Amino acid sequence: MIQPDQNELVPNPYELAGVNYRVMDPGKIEAQGRALRTAKNLERFGFKLIAESIGEPATVIDMGDFHLAFTMEGLGTKNLILDDPNSGFDDEQLYYNIGKSSVAVGANDNICVGAQTFLIGPHWGTGENWFTDKKHQALIDGWGDACDEVGAFYGGGETSMLKGLMYPHASDLSGAFIGIIRPKEQLTLGQKLEAGDHIVLVESSGIHDNGLTLARKVGSMLPDRYHTRLPSGLTYGEALLKPTLLYAGLQKDLFEAGVGIHYMANVTGHGWRKLMRAGQSFTYRMHTIPDVPEEIQLIQETANLTDTDMFETFNNGAGFAFYVSSAQAALVQEIAKKRNFMTWDAGIVEEGPKQVIIEPKGIIFSEDTLQIR
Amino acid sequence: MIQPDQNELVPNPYELAGVNYRVMDPGKIEAQGRALRTAKNLERFGFKLIAESIGEPATVIDMGDFHLAFTMEGLGTKNLILDDPNSGFDDEQLYYNIGKSSVAVGANDNICVGAQTFLIGPHWGTGENWFTDKKHQALIDGWGDACDEVGAFYGGGETSMLKGLMYPHASDLSGAFIGIIRPKEQLTLGQKLEAGDHIVLVESSGIHDNGLTLARKVGSMLPDRYHTRLPSGLTYGEALLKPTLLYAGLQKDLFEAGVGIHYMANVTGHGWRKLMRAGQSFTYRMHTIPDVPEEIQLIQETANLTDTDMFETFNNGAGFAFYVSSAQAALVQEIAKKRNFMTWDAGIVEEGPKQVIIEPKGIIFSEDTLQIR
Repeated sequence: MIQPDQNELVPNPYELAGVNYRVMDPGKIEAQGRALRTAKNLERFGFKLIAESIGEPATVIDMGDFHLAFTMEGLGTKNLILDDPNSGFDDEQLYYNIGKSSVAVGANDNICVGAQTFLIGPHWGTGENWFTDKKHQALIDGWGDACDEVGAFYGGGETSMLKGLMYPHASDLSGAFIGIIRPKEQLTLGQKLEAGDHIVLVESSGIHDNGLTLARKVGSMLPDRYHTRLPSGLTYGEALLKPTLLYAGLQKDLFEAGVGIHYMANVTGHGWRKLMRAGQSFTYRMHTIPDVPEEIQLIQETANLTDTDMFETFNNGAGFAFYVSSAQAALVQEIAKKRNFMTWDAGIVEEGPKQVIIEPKGIIFSEDTLQIR
Repeated sequence: MIQPDQNELVPNPYELAGVNYRVMDPGKIEAQGRALRTAKNLERFGFKLIAESIGEPATVIDMGDFHLAFTMEGLGTKNLILDDPNSGFDDEQLYYNIGKSSVAVGANDNICVGAQTFLIGPHWGTGENWFTDKKHQALIDGWGDACDEVGAFYGGGETSMLKGLMYPHASDLSGAFIGIIRPKEQLTLGQKLEAGDHIVLVESSGIHDNGLTLARKVGSMLPDRYHTRLPSGLTYGEALLKPTLLYAGLQKDLFEAGVGIHYMANVTGHGWRKLMRAGQSFTYRMHTIPDVPEEIQLIQETANLTDTDMFETFNNGAGFAFYVSSAQAALVQEIAKKRNFMTWDAGIVEEGPKQVIIEPKGIIFSEDTLQIR
């Protein structure tokens, strides 16, 4: 049984599985300070950092005729489901899904600032050579197909053998995601958020790429491990490895339809706390929640976690959020339906302290539970 | 004693230390094939891949008014000198040098295509949390200072805790390097190379960032290990950790002085074989070689390696090469001197089979020893 540590100010079951966001984040913030002092170097090019983008899912640089959006992101430990010799689950062809998810984890961030991603450069590292394996081919195919779906070029990347840094069986699948914001008015950093805006949640395909350390721990606790059968007929392992959905096409459709997108949130690490990512101080009141995907339900039951634990780490069925005026929420849902996305007109932006309220569960996440800016 | 494996077609002592470029490279080439098929996605932006940049140190995209140059690169295993608990060498402040070298390894690649680097986004991964350590602060300072020296913005990156993927003590220090080629005529991909061109070598500060797996192995063989005193008074460990030199300022000075740079080579992995990196078929005849840095000499002596072994893996004192017309070689040297770089007007580009000839040592590296395109 996995339980939240009651001695912590903010119980976070994820930390029990080895990831401590609250220790890591101050380091990120420290790095951001040094980084900001180099922004003056952009002047020699006639470029300018959009300072408000610091802490957003993409760093934005004004290049004159357009903005450039830059995101660096990685899949984390998800691929250990296939790579860990102790996982008892091995289907190299599922590396195709891993490839797609590796692209999604960064592309879904990059588009949040209003960008169209045009360049995705892989950074792959591994502890031993597997660059001639069939799993490598599957990874390349999945990565390439996801780039096509996003509409981006799969650009010059780096594959590194990191013997002595990485475990022999392990791989780090990361990448750089570069987008263009054109016209510049599509820049979306939260400055357009208004009280009264609606929050339209878009379905996830499942766990996506966050909470995987915990998910793997649960995998080791189940009698049939990753082969545990779920109500849908999928095994637990297969369910965890469903490709992360890509929202780039939907974002593009919305812009092309003239929807005024006030903000976008990729529901990833920090779970539903990410819904208050914008710098502005608002209360995000969620009155509707999606059904929780079956593999996430199994994690909750097996690890005996509270709903609060779950919403603070997992997407719980909502992979992405569009914040739009109340008048346009229905249009967002209509356009999403054409792309076969389920959506929920699920919440309201309100004046008030910065927090996420999940009404159906009586959960409140206050501002201090999300230190990512 | 470390000896080349005589059963291999092309002896490479580096492989004995765990890195097999010849096995890895076909995988890179395979990935390039899938990548190229996504280049059509750039059309929706009015952009175009410069296909000739595939296999060069940066991927180049024509964005209309200028070209964009993209490089993903990492430090590899150099930081294990400090991070490996078994190394017996521990000076956290030297993480400042590691930070500078981590930037140099990619920035020196990015500028090769004629770009000025404006954005450097870190991708740092580690097996355990050290993001609040003083070594983290030193790393940030070194990274930031190197970005200032290059004249680039230290942009939004990613710091990931990769427990289960990376060894607890290990860190992967990589980054994305994005440059602009403006005016577009400064695009430098080898198409300007001509028989009769001179090859001006620019000094390295020492081992830089290649051959480190072998260097660490030698460190474990020496009686005083990393504390072995070298003729200069530095210890072996300190010498290995001298910051890699940055050539961005020199490249910029040369362009501003109107030097017609025909090609640039960053002498990194594959050692002097990198001098024939350009796609064109020429013979590169080197008639002059720099003195070999003391720590590299010690590696050769301790591991009992031939000169051929050394030149095929190490920079041997030459960190970077500019290829210019014979008439401009002296000007390159003069401008480099103002930046306190030692240089050697060291070789000639000739018609003939693709190969590097190192005359003073009687070494010939044929085309098939460099499979990176």
